[in-house]
Amino acid sequence: MLRLIHYRLCPLSRSIRLALAEQGREADLVEEHAWEWPESLLELNPSGELPVLQLGDGRAVSGTYAIAELLSEEEPEHRMGRSSFPLFPGSRVERAEVRRLVHWFNSKFDREVSRELLAEKVYPRLASPAVGLDGRAPPGPPDPALLRAVRHNLRYHLTYIAYLAEERRWLAGEEPSYADLAAAAHLSLVDYLGEISWDSHPGAKAWYQRVKSRPSFRHLLADRVPGFPPPHHYADLDF
Amino acid sequence: MLRLIHYRLCPLSRSIRLALAEQGREADLVEEHAWEWPESLLELNPSGELPVLQLGDGRAVSGTYAIAELLSEEEPEHRMGRSSFPLFPGSRVERAEVRRLVHWFNSKFDREVSRELLAEKVYPRLASPAVGLDGRAPPGPPDPALLRAVRHNLRYHLTYIAYLAEERRWLAGEEPSYADLAAAAHLSLVDYLGEISWDSHPGAKAWYQRVKSRPSFRHLLADRVPGFPPPHHYADLDF
Repeated sequence: MLRLIHYRLCPLSRSIRLALAEQGREADLVEEHAWEWPESLLELNPSGELPVLQLGDGRAVSGTYAIAELLSEEEPEHRMGRSSFPLFPGSRVERAEVRRLVHWFNSKFDREVSRELLAEKVYPRLASPAVGLDGRAPPGPPDPALLRAVRHNLRYHLTYIAYLAEERRWLAGEEPSYADLAAAAHLSLVDYLGEISWDSHPGAKAWYQRVKSRPSFRHLLADRVPGFPPPHHYADLDF
Repeated sequence: MLRLIHYRLCPLSRSIRLALAEQGREADLVEEHAWEWPESLLELNPSGELPVLQLGDGRAVSGTYAIAELLSEEEPEHRMGRSSFPLFPGSRVERAEVRRLVHWFNSKFDREVSRELLAEKVYPRLASPAVGLDGRAPPGPPDPALLRAVRHNLRYHLTYIAYLAEERRWLAGEEPSYADLAAAAHLSLVDYLGEISWDSHPGAKAWYQRVKSRPSFRHLLADRVPGFPPPHHYADLDF
């Protein structure tokens, strides 16, 4: 049995949950709070990053890059009619376009939007109760200047998503790919945190609606973090 | 003919130059100053990141992830005895280990060491002469607190390289791989800037010596940036 070490709002973990679900693979989910640097995670992945996929024999495969490529390499035998689409479809150059966009979302978007929102809005409030007792100040409200910069970046990314989805149907081409899953995983976090004005981004919304309606998305949309309710439209397929 | 859009000190570009040289492929080198956001680069790669590989038909493949995987996918036909080693050797799980380490260097090391050193020590001094004329202050010396943090990170990474290279001979296993090229590309930049005390890191030094002695490294070691001479040992194979 596969084990996925993840955190429920981590967009990188979410992209792998989507990939596993699209391939019809089951995995036990084990949650880690990576931002607290737990020993149990560092033993599996010395970089301390999520996600980690533990194979049936206990070996650990760390990070979205290694995991997504491994899942893709196992597709031909594994799929047998169960996988709904190859993670990296098409010719070599078409697959290179998928990978360019995977890097765009899992690295650039992550750095410019997701990681900042998690660090400002989520992690400080989930820190252990010891925070504030050892002389450190309890977490304050998010930094408005930083949130303004993140929202500026987000609008630029949503415009790029709309441009790609209108030119090509799916982000990397005529077929869906892991690029769509990676992008949608990040948007699902940002949407959970109430940061997307969908009516201002109809092109991105139309594309996200198509990804969000896939059965692979169902489990993600059901996850909640206690104390952080998502906006009402979050799990609505017709938002 | 292939064209590689690169910058001579960019470690990500350097890793692809090494991969091309290991495969015995020729590419025209075209230099761009990515930190100035030139239109000519943004037209090829909207993220503005280096490197970009332009194929014979003009199509652009952007970023180390997409380029290295493309070069690897073309290996079986292309190699014909010329490539000295596969970029991603071994079983699926062994290749996943290569990819984990490629991510480690091209993302974590890049963020914690290379990108900071380039931004502090190189880019400000190469900026166009207009800097200082439009009201902005001319570049000052590097921030000492930031350099201390980067040097602390660097020692940790050099210790990890020594641990891997002593356990396994090469970073990802018994065979050399693109992980060695990516790591060595970053170290070559850091070494060019005089930031490595090799005598304090004999394990990392022994491994770097083996990579640096490969013929694929020769062109890198000959590159110079006017006004930034590297330390004397930089191009010396017996440093």
